[in-house]
Amino acid sequence: MLPGGLRVVTEHVAGARSASVGLWVDVGSRDEPAVGTGAHGAAHFLEHLLFKGTRRRSARAIAEEIDAVGGDLNAFTGKESTCFYAHVLDRDMPLAVDVLGDVVLDAVMAAPDVELERDVVLSEIAGRDEDPEDLLADDFDALLFGAHPLGLPVIGTEETVTGMTRDRLADFHARHYVPARSVLAVAGNVAHAEVLAAVEAAYGSRLDGPAQPWHRTAGETPTTSYERLAVRDEDTEQAHLMLGVPSLRRADPRWPALQVLSTVLGGGMSSRLFQQVREQRGLAYSVYSSTTGYTDAGTLAVYVGCAPERLGAAASVVRDEMGDLAAHGITDAELTRARGQLRGELVLGLEETSSRMTRLGRRELDHGGLDRATDLASTLDRIDGVGADDVASLASELLTGPRAAAVVGPYGDADELPDEVREMVSP
Amino acid sequence: MLPGGLRVVTEHVAGARSASVGLWVDVGSRDEPAVGTGAHGAAHFLEHLLFKGTRRRSARAIAEEIDAVGGDLNAFTGKESTCFYAHVLDRDMPLAVDVLGDVVLDAVMAAPDVELERDVVLSEIAGRDEDPEDLLADDFDALLFGAHPLGLPVIGTEETVTGMTRDRLADFHARHYVPARSVLAVAGNVAHAEVLAAVEAAYGSRLDGPAQPWHRTAGETPTTSYERLAVRDEDTEQAHLMLGVPSLRRADPRWPALQVLSTVLGGGMSSRLFQQVREQRGLAYSVYSSTTGYTDAGTLAVYVGCAPERLGAAASVVRDEMGDLAAHGITDAELTRARGQLRGELVLGLEETSSRMTRLGRRELDHGGLDRATDLASTLDRIDGVGADDVASLASELLTGPRAAAVVGPYGDADELPDEVREMVSP
Repeated sequence: MLPGGLRVVTEHVAGARSASVGLWVDVGSRDEPAVGTGAHGAAHFLEHLLFKGTRRRSARAIAEEIDAVGGDLNAFTGKESTCFYAHVLDRDMPLAVDVLGDVVLDAVMAAPDVELERDVVLSEIAGRDEDPEDLLADDFDALLFGAHPLGLPVIGTEETVTGMTRDRLADFHARHYVPARSVLAVAGNVAHAEVLAAVEAAYGSRLDGPAQPWHRTAGETPTTSYERLAVRDEDTEQAHLMLGVPSLRRADPRWPALQVLSTVLGGGMSSRLFQQVREQRGLAYSVYSSTTGYTDAGTLAVYVGCAPERLGAAASVVRDEMGDLAAHGITDAELTRARGQLRGELVLGLEETSSRMTRLGRRELDHGGLDRATDLASTLDRIDGVGADDVASLASELLTGPRAAAVVGPYGDADELPDEVREMVSP
Repeated sequence: MLPGGLRVVTEHVAGARSASVGLWVDVGSRDEPAVGTGAHGAAHFLEHLLFKGTRRRSARAIAEEIDAVGGDLNAFTGKESTCFYAHVLDRDMPLAVDVLGDVVLDAVMAAPDVELERDVVLSEIAGRDEDPEDLLADDFDALLFGAHPLGLPVIGTEETVTGMTRDRLADFHARHYVPARSVLAVAGNVAHAEVLAAVEAAYGSRLDGPAQPWHRTAGETPTTSYERLAVRDEDTEQAHLMLGVPSLRRADPRWPALQVLSTVLGGGMSSRLFQQVREQRGLAYSVYSSTTGYTDAGTLAVYVGCAPERLGAAASVVRDEMGDLAAHGITDAELTRARGQLRGELVLGLEETSSRMTRLGRRELDHGGLDRATDLASTLDRIDGVGADDVASLASELLTGPRAAAVVGPYGDADELPDEVREMVSP
């Protein structure tokens, strides 16, 4: 920990020639409503705007400095956090630390750039509106989380982005984009002391004075009651269905069991849904399950993309497999295979310095310094510690409750949906 | 080299815990017309079909074996090569070698699976038809290469895929998917001797007998004359333009100079086109240049995606920048920055074992054992050896010839295009 409350976490990766540097800010779209309804989309808008120039660097200078070393500079915004990152050769780590700090803490946010980026964000919204899977995920979250801030799309709406003012953005920035709410995560061929030296050289007086790191705390779980069905009429060739239930907070000790459950249900080519829906019956090209976790809520969802005339049949296979898991749990062979799959994916997924940086940053934000036992070996141990009983009891708890379904496709309203879909979400 | 003509190339990656295993076959869509017009799309069709089961393994067994170790199994087809690959933990390398050999050399190609995968490929074609950028690239290649096999889309056409027979696929497979036309490339935490042992254990008698490796040889360059303009009327919100010229064969010694040229023109955020088209004038969200290289031809192209009413203005900036490069070459600052960018991207791009495997496999196919001086250091030296004069003379050679342009967007025919686009490709 450094003055100003900034936390710095480093992982040395032997054999790497690069460094991934991420400046994480513990702010996301769920923090917007507190500032007023017009702030919706501010975090994502800032993700764009901050790159347009700082007091020391024009947008062009930022581009030239990073291009000159062959680096990659970008950012992504979520519901609970935002990450600004660079991937560079190890020797260029100090440059990356400097540019990122400059961009996140010292951007000018010039009025003409607000207008320029407003157009860019509006075209991004138009693009999302042409992508059924993106729309579906936003609709599903809106069903499950309702008016809670987790139910809002990260990107904002056409209305809020059009109405966004520079003052509101600057206000949102001043409140949240501060060292005490930030984590600098670095993974690669660099030592922790080198990173600290780079931070001190680059950030200087911006870190003056003591400050306690800020930590997000869990509130009420926002999914005790929710809407059950959303239909969006689009002239698409495929029907898109996302069907699911509330699951667990990310910090829940049963999280590894949830991963095993999702893997057996729809996590790979050998999963129940892939085999039953695609391989055995040829009902859909794409079918899988997924989980998301937040500080105080989570979801477990199944996605199906198929020809509209096959949606009813596909939905009834999904219903049967969910029902079977809830009633009978999983087999020992499924447990063994799912644990192997999760272990392998985890290790293979940490090959790049960028994925290690992401893991480091998220962990520090999630656990707020309280639970440091998050090295790879303990994570692997937690996966191996999952038993078939754990999965069975979780399945019977989660998969028997009320389900929610979002559909995008050529359906005028809910009455035009196949009966099987409507029945799955009936009270 | 092993019996049967199979070549095995290995790169040990210190610090990695995984292995990427790729079985490359020196066959792609350009090899299809020789077998008859109905064979168009066969290589890509086989990429799907071969995973559906072998004499020793059902499709489900393949999925279960790879999922159980958390591995990833997939394939991609190009115009000159096809790669079947797996990414697994290092200890599972022998399994990956076994499964890939089984899939590529010993697939059953059962008649019902041909029908099942025909539907899958047809939906892929339907998906391509909904993606303007994919369509654009296919249209551009069709302009530049005309009736030459390089001008055909890899995926085939609805007509050829619908008419594809099992016999034709089996014939295409028997001719081309043989050890003498294959390279096994492995990168990761494994030793060459371990890979050879795994190959011998898995492939056994399939490698019996001596055979010379097959090498693709360069023919006539197929771009001496070509069509200049293609317009595809689609009801899209954006206009999509790909504008370019023939460039160099991949083995041309001026290839590194071409990379510098493309980088300065449109290779990054600080490139001329990004700065002029997007940052200074806000004419397009997306603009970049790219190159492709084959055994006997290559292309240099610029992509612009913008609002239809801005296409004319964007095209005239592209024309001006191309003209300026052809007349005056690049500045020393641009040369330095482009070399740094290419060096950095190259090193950063080799972080994953999968990208190292891809590099290994392609190199072996490209150079056919003739030019082995392809280690990273010599590639970096070749980039550093590019001078501003080399780039200037290449620019004046390539950028003054006739240009070709493909457009996808709301234009009924060429007469509805902005004048600036038509003028760029006029004789």
